[in-house]
Amino acid sequence: MKFAVTITLKNDVLDPQGKVVGQTLKNIGIKNLNSIRQGKFFEIDLDESDSNKGEKKVKEMCEKLLANQIIEDFQIKKI
Amino acid sequence: MKFAVTITLKNDVLDPQGKVVGQTLKNIGIKNLNSIRQGKFFEIDLDESDSNKGEKKVKEMCEKLLANQIIEDFQIKKI
Repeated sequence: MKFAVTITLKNDVLDPQGKVVGQTLKNIGIKNLNSIRQGKFFEIDLDESDSNKGEKKVKEMCEKLLANQIIEDFQIKKI
Repeated sequence: MKFAVTITLKNDVLDPQGKVVGQTLKNIGIKNLNSIRQGKFFEIDLDESDSNKGEKKVKEMCEKLLANQIIEDFQIKKI
């Protein structure tokens, strides 16, 4: 069973990396860009057939290691 | 108009960063993990009301800067 996890900075946390990407996009001629924010993405393949149990396990991974919940939010989706 | 962009390594490209994360998850007691692969995520806010034009612009950003198409695939989703 596969899960997609998206980890993004909370809205009120500055994103210097995204700022640089946004500036670079403007420099190479991209217009109409309001903002761009960067996050992380994980594709997790679990040996688990129960989707509730699987999601719980992925949540545990996020809380224990993948996301820093002080500054980041995470979103889990079955794929 | 907002778009979510997910950039992942192509399947036959090694992902050492994901390997380390996977090993660490096992070390802290997570079981049933088959594999984990890491990618990048961008949340892009465009000043554009036509969703086709917006998607085209985001595709251009991916091709020109965000993704390295030799080793990476990208996926665009309107949010």
